[in-house]
Parts: sequence; C-alpha cells; structure tokens
Amino acid sequence: MADRITVFEVGVRDGLQNEPSHPSTATKIGFIQDLVASGVREFELGAFVRPDRVPQMADTEALYRAIAAKRLKLGKAHAWSLVPNLRGLERAIAVGATRIAVFTAASEGFARNNIGMTVAQSLKEYGKVVDQARAAGLRVRGYVSTAFGCPFDGKVAPSRALRVIERLAELGVEQVSIGDTIGVATPAGVDAVIRPALRLLGAKRVAGHFHDTRGTALANSLRAIEHGVRTLDASAGGLGGCPFAPGATGNLATEDLVYMLDGMGMKSGIDLDRLSQASLRMARKLKRPLASRYLQAYASSKPGKPGKA
Amino acid sequence: MADRITVFEVGVRDGLQNEPSHPSTATKIGFIQDLVASGVREFELGAFVRPDRVPQMADTEALYRAIAAKRLKLGKAHAWSLVPNLRGLERAIAVGATRIAVFTAASEGFARNNIGMTVAQSLKEYGKVVDQARAAGLRVRGYVSTAFGCPFDGKVAPSRALRVIERLAELGVEQVSIGDTIGVATPAGVDAVIRPALRLLGAKRVAGHFHDTRGTALANSLRAIEHGVRTLDASAGGLGGCPFAPGATGNLATEDLVYMLDGMGMKSGIDLDRLSQASLRMARKLKRPLASRYLQAYASSKPGKPGKA
Repeated sequence: MADRITVFEVGVRDGLQNEPSHPSTATKIGFIQDLVASGVREFELGAFVRPDRVPQMADTEALYRAIAAKRLKLGKAHAWSLVPNLRGLERAIAVGATRIAVFTAASEGFARNNIGMTVAQSLKEYGKVVDQARAAGLRVRGYVSTAFGCPFDGKVAPSRALRVIERLAELGVEQVSIGDTIGVATPAGVDAVIRPALRLLGAKRVAGHFHDTRGTALANSLRAIEHGVRTLDASAGGLGGCPFAPGATGNLATEDLVYMLDGMGMKSGIDLDRLSQASLRMARKLKRPLASRYLQAYASSKPGKPGKA
Repeated sequence: MADRITVFEVGVRDGLQNEPSHPSTATKIGFIQDLVASGVREFELGAFVRPDRVPQMADTEALYRAIAAKRLKLGKAHAWSLVPNLRGLERAIAVGATRIAVFTAASEGFARNNIGMTVAQSLKEYGKVVDQARAAGLRVRGYVSTAFGCPFDGKVAPSRALRVIERLAELGVEQVSIGDTIGVATPAGVDAVIRPALRLLGAKRVAGHFHDTRGTALANSLRAIEHGVRTLDASAGGLGGCPFAPGATGNLATEDLVYMLDGMGMKSGIDLDRLSQASLRMARKLKRPLASRYLQAYASSKPGKPGKA
C-alpha cells in the first residue's frame, strides 16, 4: 500500500457554502492562509456560480484578486473553483483561475434541484466547458454528487453512478471525485461504486468525497484506501452540511482523516496541530464548535500531541 | 465473511457511569426496556463497585431486584455487570446476577488510577474472582482497558497489551473485550493488537471496544470486522465519555455501528429505528443531544428510513 494520500481540502468552498453567517473575504483569506501553512496543497477556493443563488461564494473573484495582488499567498498550494457552465468558465479565466471543477450528480432529482439541468444536459454543457477550459490551459476536476444516495430519489444504483462517473471521465476531467453528498454510504457502497471506478479509471483519476452525516465517512474512507484510493476530499473542522438535512453533520473532517492517516503511517503532508489551530480560529469566527471529533478532543484537552489526551 | 455481529450494548453502564445528572433507577429501567425491545441481546447493566466512588452505579442491586420482581423484563436479553473484586462478586451472587465482567488495563497508570492496583495485582485478584464465579455457575467476561493508549502513560506497546489480554484469557474469562478507552486507536493499532489477539484466542473470545474521541471508532470497528472480530461493544446514542478528557466524545455509538452493519448486510438483530427512538427518549431525560452522528441526522430529519434524509 503506497503510503502517500492527497487530502483535498474542501472547507473553504463545500464547507462554507451553506454557512449562514457568511464569513467575510478577510476571514476566508486568513483561513486559507492558515490551511496552506498547515500543509494543505490542493484546496477548493470558491465557485463561479450565481452570487444571488449562493451569496457565500460571491467573493470568489475577490479571492483570486487577492492572490494576484499577493495579499493571499498560496506558496506550493493550488486553488480550485467550481464552474457550473460556460459563463462561469469565462469568469474563471478572466480572473486568472488555473484549476476548475465541474459538477454533476448520479441522480436526476439532485441534478434538477442543485444545477437545474438533467444529468444528460449537464454532461453536454460540461463537455463544452471542459474542452474550452483545457484549450485555455486550465486543469479540470469533476464531481459526481449523490453517487450513493439522493435526498430526492432515495437509493442510487451503483451501475447508474458508475455510468455518470464514466461519462464525466470521458469528457476529459483529470479526476472524478465520487461524492456521498448526504452521507448515506457504508463500506458496502464503497465496494460497489469506488472499487469498479478504480478499475475503470485508475487511482490517480479517482477521489472519494464522503460526508459524515451518519458517522460513516471515516470508515468509508478507510475502505476506499484499502481499495487503492489515494485522494480523499475532506473539510477542515468538518465544516459543511447539507441544506436538505438541517442540523446534520457535513463533510468528513480533515482532522479526523489526518489523525487516522498519521496513525497508519500514511503521509498527507498536513501538520495536525497547525490544522487544528486553523479550524479553532475559524470556529471562533463562526462562534460555534465545529463537528470534527478530533478537534473537539483537541479543544477540550489541548494535548501537546495526539494520543496524550 | 460470516454476516452476524453481536453488538454488546454498554450504554447503561459505560455510557451512564460518568453521567453528571445521575439518571434515576426508573429512567434506567425504561432505557433498558427500550433497548431490549429494539433487539439488544447482550448488555451491561451496572457495576458492583463502591457506591461512594461511582454513585451512578449505586442502584445496580436495585436493577437486579427489578428483574427478579418482573418490573424489568429482559426476555431473551442478558445483563452483565462489572465486578472489581471478591466483595463485588459476593454482591453479584447475592442479588442473582448470572453474568459478570472483570476489568484490568494494559497500562499501569490507568490500573493504578482506575482500580487502585497494579496490573499484576489485578490479575491475581481476578484469578480468584473468576474461579469463584465459575464455581458458582456464573459466566465471566473480561475487559482490558487502555489497550491502545493511556491518559497517564501515553502510548502502550501492542506486545504489552497482548500480554495482558493473554493473561486475562488464561484466567478463564470467556471473552476479552479489548478497549480503546480514550479513543486514540487507528486501524494500524487494530492490526497490531486485535489481529494477533484473534489468532491467539479465536473470534468468539475477542471483542472490540472502541471510543470515538477522535472520530476513529467506526473505522477501527470496520478494520476489526475485516480481521474477523464478531463482537463489538457500543453505546446507545454514543453515551459516555472519559473522565480524563472532559468534553470529549465517548463510546462508539450503537446507531452508527448498526447503520454501517445494516448497509453491509451484516445482521445484528437490532432495529435501528427503535434503537434511535430509545436513545432520543434518553436524550430528553438527560436534556442534551447525544453524540451519535446517525442519531443527530435521524433527529433532524425524522426519516421514514435511513437514506431518505
């Protein structure tokens, strides 16, 4: 088992996009700076979506301008932003984004409610986005939401999820992040969806994106790692949630993942202590504790090292 | 992979023993009745420890009297209670207990602080307890706490944990529950401790007892299942915590475990909806939300079925 895992940090985008308190651009800049200092190398910065629909992402351009003006220094880290259509791509290119992500769903109910298109329409639209983005020299990642279950359609057949994953990959995205958007997956679902996706695309082109709504995100990540996945999406502090399940926990917490990886001798390059401090600063800004179990233990015991609590 | 898992419910004892609000005997009886109705078959009832030290367990005799008087009906379920010494065994036998558990630790620091003996002293004392208990026809389980790490001594070498596990097994306990008392284990620790314990004792004599303090309990349980463990301790709602890490999460939540097992087609005999209702009733008694992720999602969405949230 190769011992290097890429932790793809999604806290700034997936984590904050439903945050009711709308953190300021300055707060986001501080958070990103903290995350980069903790060793994060790939992260979601924002989304070129309609500001009236997702006001939390309205400052995406401002963040790119901060990077250009060196008010936000990324060092060796790379910012990725979501692009829903050709207009979004124009905005991304105009502001100097070099890495984007397109996103569809494995279920029609979620596609209709989240992106206002059928899955087929979205793949058609993204075909153009990916072509033009790559022609402009951008790197493109893809997401397939609700790959294990949908808040509208219920269960999603693995064969259906795999078909969407394969078609998105065929558009030319470099990696497909397979999402358990509402946190219903168990390791059996990982066997049914992630394992064949790995066979189809290889480990470099597959990421696991698990939500911890029912407590299974880390177990699912472990099973994905066992199958060969080497990129996992996670959110600092466990920031995030699903607008369709109020009160429910959001993304897999980066701290919980990194704690497990550290214990298993798998290298992520992330300093768990620094990351925890970053999340605690963000928690103070948001005026609430974050969901990460590791972070809660860290905050209550302030151990010098994990395991000393 | 055999598809039957025994979920050993520890919420009434391990879950409530540090509960500051000291639930009444009537509340415990209602909780146990709910747990049994949800399909729980093996559970911890109480502990024959000093009432001045652990007042939450002071009604252990009263609970056995309630069983004898049929005010608490166990049906096919079996109650187990902790016994720290020969005096505790006398109390257990006097009140009609048929299943007891002895408990030591893999680390001297925890043994000294928790049971006031060295590990060697505790094994000597338990040798007598196990002999007399078995002679009286009782069944005896054993616990090894801090098998992966200790709040006082830090890391615990797997070889040391295994030595204590083996010596406790040699005393004649029918099963050794291997405990991550402060929730520091990762799947690598499961590989290092649980796998050799399974080789030594066989699956029937090994249980995994994980705490979710750093979010790893379910991942550790998954890895233990992969190695062949077929008994897992868990606490309804995730009740419990460690007195040495205030604010930190306690036992693996039974709901999170059963949700994962259900998804994997592994049978526990527990009805997740009924169990969740039982934990929600207990949460109302305790006037606080419980830690289980599944339960939080269930409470916020009240889905007809898991996966419909």
